[in-house]
Amino acid sequence: MFGYNGKILEVDLSNRIIDILSLDEELTRNYIGGSGLSAKIIYDETSPEIDPLDCRSPLVFMTGPFTNTIIPTSGRHAIAARSPLTGIWGEADVGGSWGISLKRAGYDGIKIKGASKTQVYLWIHSGKVEIRNAEHLWGIDTYRVEELLKKETDEKASVACIGPAGEYLVKFASIMHDGKNARVAGRCGLGAVMGAKKLKAIVVEGKGKTRIKDEKGLRRLVKKIIPQMREETAYLGNYGTTGSAVELEEIGDLPIKNWRQGRWKDGAKKLSGQTLLETIFSGNYHCPACPIGCGKEVKIREGKYSGVDGAAAEYETIATLGSLCLVDDLKAVSLANQLCNQYGMDTISTGGVIAFAMEAYEKGLINSSDLDGLELTWGNADAVIEMVRRIGERRGLGRFLGEGVRRAAEEIGGRASEFAIHVKGLELPGHDPRAFYSLALGYATSNRGACHLQAYSHPLEGWITMPDLGYSECLPPHTEKGKAELVIKLQNLMCMFDSLKICKYSLYGGIEPHHLVEFLNFITDWDIDLKEFMRVGERIFNLKRLYNVRCGISRKDDTLPPRLLTHTRGEGGAANTLPHLGRMLNEYYKLRGWSEDGIPLSSKLKEVDLDV
Amino acid sequence: MFGYNGKILEVDLSNRIIDILSLDEELTRNYIGGSGLSAKIIYDETSPEIDPLDCRSPLVFMTGPFTNTIIPTSGRHAIAARSPLTGIWGEADVGGSWGISLKRAGYDGIKIKGASKTQVYLWIHSGKVEIRNAEHLWGIDTYRVEELLKKETDEKASVACIGPAGEYLVKFASIMHDGKNARVAGRCGLGAVMGAKKLKAIVVEGKGKTRIKDEKGLRRLVKKIIPQMREETAYLGNYGTTGSAVELEEIGDLPIKNWRQGRWKDGAKKLSGQTLLETIFSGNYHCPACPIGCGKEVKIREGKYSGVDGAAAEYETIATLGSLCLVDDLKAVSLANQLCNQYGMDTISTGGVIAFAMEAYEKGLINSSDLDGLELTWGNADAVIEMVRRIGERRGLGRFLGEGVRRAAEEIGGRASEFAIHVKGLELPGHDPRAFYSLALGYATSNRGACHLQAYSHPLEGWITMPDLGYSECLPPHTEKGKAELVIKLQNLMCMFDSLKICKYSLYGGIEPHHLVEFLNFITDWDIDLKEFMRVGERIFNLKRLYNVRCGISRKDDTLPPRLLTHTRGEGGAANTLPHLGRMLNEYYKLRGWSEDGIPLSSKLKEVDLDV
Repeated sequence: MFGYNGKILEVDLSNRIIDILSLDEELTRNYIGGSGLSAKIIYDETSPEIDPLDCRSPLVFMTGPFTNTIIPTSGRHAIAARSPLTGIWGEADVGGSWGISLKRAGYDGIKIKGASKTQVYLWIHSGKVEIRNAEHLWGIDTYRVEELLKKETDEKASVACIGPAGEYLVKFASIMHDGKNARVAGRCGLGAVMGAKKLKAIVVEGKGKTRIKDEKGLRRLVKKIIPQMREETAYLGNYGTTGSAVELEEIGDLPIKNWRQGRWKDGAKKLSGQTLLETIFSGNYHCPACPIGCGKEVKIREGKYSGVDGAAAEYETIATLGSLCLVDDLKAVSLANQLCNQYGMDTISTGGVIAFAMEAYEKGLINSSDLDGLELTWGNADAVIEMVRRIGERRGLGRFLGEGVRRAAEEIGGRASEFAIHVKGLELPGHDPRAFYSLALGYATSNRGACHLQAYSHPLEGWITMPDLGYSECLPPHTEKGKAELVIKLQNLMCMFDSLKICKYSLYGGIEPHHLVEFLNFITDWDIDLKEFMRVGERIFNLKRLYNVRCGISRKDDTLPPRLLTHTRGEGGAANTLPHLGRMLNEYYKLRGWSEDGIPLSSKLKEVDLDV
Repeated sequence: MFGYNGKILEVDLSNRIIDILSLDEELTRNYIGGSGLSAKIIYDETSPEIDPLDCRSPLVFMTGPFTNTIIPTSGRHAIAARSPLTGIWGEADVGGSWGISLKRAGYDGIKIKGASKTQVYLWIHSGKVEIRNAEHLWGIDTYRVEELLKKETDEKASVACIGPAGEYLVKFASIMHDGKNARVAGRCGLGAVMGAKKLKAIVVEGKGKTRIKDEKGLRRLVKKIIPQMREETAYLGNYGTTGSAVELEEIGDLPIKNWRQGRWKDGAKKLSGQTLLETIFSGNYHCPACPIGCGKEVKIREGKYSGVDGAAAEYETIATLGSLCLVDDLKAVSLANQLCNQYGMDTISTGGVIAFAMEAYEKGLINSSDLDGLELTWGNADAVIEMVRRIGERRGLGRFLGEGVRRAAEEIGGRASEFAIHVKGLELPGHDPRAFYSLALGYATSNRGACHLQAYSHPLEGWITMPDLGYSECLPPHTEKGKAELVIKLQNLMCMFDSLKICKYSLYGGIEPHHLVEFLNFITDWDIDLKEFMRVGERIFNLKRLYNVRCGISRKDDTLPPRLLTHTRGEGGAANTLPHLGRMLNEYYKLRGWSEDGIPLSSKLKEVDLDV
């Protein structure tokens, strides 16, 4: 089978049984790999009464047909499980070397079943799979544990691991990759699923090649694309993901002070990629097979934030641990970011819960005795850092915040849910739906809760075009018109990005849907067209929705926090905008072929060949 | 003190202590009477941890300065308590003779404290207050019990009582007045509060007169108004409240099939006042002091619905027990209506929960074994009647539906809340916010949950003008523009209607705010102007909001059921309309002087002299 190893490794940690499942070609053509194939496995093997942290809830790591090829930005893999943070479909898409190593080791994915009684890690190499003792690694941070595991195994190995947050079952614990060149499977708390299984890490090394139908054709196309890609993404490569912070603040996209403040010009500048390059920047790092290279390294040698050495804070991190908390000190945010990486926690959710706690403190719903005297005031950088530690170690109020804003607000009760900014339990990333109306619909309907990447439609409201899908021009951002169609098309397309495994930033380098089809046809002998390609994306999106419907999701959950539906920013580029979510949803359900209550109709399921 | 007796009767049922509280003039000028004065008493005497059915939760009956005067449509009183249905501010405004009798008996209101150990009723007459045994009356329906109580007391007495539903603590039990000439304090489940206090009835008789400062002036003005009033309300007088059913269906106001269906022309016609007059109409009845006379009596002598004899179903009833359930048989709806009256249950909530159960049945979330074999299908009139009985008697699924749609949906779980149509726990009345955008905002912000009467703004989007408040023309119904200001002004004004005690239908007879001010100045010696008048309304509205804030209410609760925010009716006069609630709320909070989270700011409280 071209493009695949045709094998999924199944590890039953309860019974210490290792099995190899064969992957049939029809399944790959129908669900591709990565996110799509994980969804199929999890949909088929679970039932809604099983708690996400129950040993019976499977955790899936999955590569795609693009993994371990020369396709630019294909160094990625997917991780999926029922989310302990949201209780619904959970997935994280992550870059780095690990997915490639897994595929080189001879597997397309790993399905982890059961839970170990003792602390273990997996070591996959040279055709062997070992379940090894990890007691001596428990409690060790992710940067250090990567070094130790490489020493115990092979310096060339790739490490996916959890930190103390995952061990302590923090509900937004991440799965970390590549040590201090951090690549983070951050969202949905999948690190807690690993923690519940007492699985500290999966270490993998391999040298295999993936069979490709037309290697020469693929090479020719890639060679043609790469120069243009480098050129068009030079800014991103130079300044990293924080390079647009100033611009995004101007247009009203950057969330500030728990989504309440309109402008914060100086703060955005202080946290930007431009400031980064002038101050603490210490180097670049790339995912394998990436011509963009957005990864930045930082080093702080002196002062109270010294010790920072490794991955710089990404845009999402400066937006959440920074602007959401009004912290404008890049060094402090860099340390908070590193601590999140080392404890193994999603920076978006961490920043979200701390901003929530700051507002609760401001409003007197938590007090300084709850905080052991900590002054959790807006902009107090040291308090943010201390809260990161407490969440990562489940100490004091950190225990409670580690459950995420939805549960924290329920616990506080009354008015607290007013400023718990999440959708379906997932904290919002750093993009304001009042700046790009498609984000409002995208957040409300994303299958993993509030997420800008599951549709990634807002670039088409500002920067990029996509003639393949009928978008030769950008859409105006502050209108509902046409957004339902846009979001649907892009959600379906992003299901393909997440299943093939290719980075969404490739869009900025001129990659268009037809390129992906061409890539896939060079790799496999399927000879599929754009129509089938998009229908597979639609199938995958609907499958995830069906999973969520089984978890109780329907229209009532397809909404936004009241603050974003009601309150205007008041100043800046999105001063007086408020998306009319209901109107967009109305159109969305109709175009999706779903019922008025947001349930896929059987006619639609038939159309996309979902026989469930 | 002009316009008042200056006395509130306090009955402590736990200790059987009867007291008379004096009413000082400052309090009456600040809170007027009726709803406003009840709010002040309940706000001051309760705390949020006391359950609505706890014996410590007071129940207040209150007249206003217009009660027992010749002012047209002033035969009304207010009843208020913390609502067992919603857990927040609960009130009901009701017509009939009872309020007048109470005021004639020498009291402006009654405050019921505590709870009796045995079943009792109150008999108030000739300066005496008796707590009498009611064991022999327990379980008897409201029509019959009124007759029995009059025999036991005085044929001229007025009776406020509960039926079996109130005794069984059905959460939307009503307090019924005037027997089969039913006048219903329907909303918010105040009948259950009486039931919890083991108070079957309050019977009152009196002959006293209310002192009025300028009786002649008042008489002159009333005489001038009445002919115009009769003329302008002739249609309402002729056909009753169901006379507009056909028109309201046409413009998309009548809710159909649990708010899902667009048109139902024939059904509306069959349930209309026009059909009523041609078929089962048997007479008219009036509230005292009312020149309109919207009350209709019906009699069914033959067939399976025979036995109906008394009050006809009002518009709200044909909209809920009729169109909401797709029942188009006027005789069946008349029986369902009479049963609701006799059991003592709000027809709006009863129709709402039955329509909810029909949809749950259609969707397989409840099945025929839950229903003991009853086919609860759309339009099945006999099933609706049977469900009314089961709710009133707390039998089978009726027990569960008697908790209201919010709790019933929580109990069923999952997708059920998708079609539980309520705001803050109160089922929606028969007016669609997609037809009149001010209703969307009015429902979302009404202090007792979904209610068209707490703002009663939608007539200004279609039929009436109000130059006193700046509305010389009607506002277009399908736009958000100006609706925040409209709703605020009308909410404040309706607080005055509900406190003075005057019927909102007087608006159709040409009564304008300046008339109310003139009436009040003829009655009292306050000499107030329209500005002060409206500020008192604003004070009362804010006081109720503060009560609700104490119960945990904020912005997050100021919303509509998802169905009404997202789904268009698809056909008819409101085929493609969807109010943008967030935008209206944004403006509303600003104009109200409330925080972004919907909390009255201290500057506003100071402005309206609310020192709480």
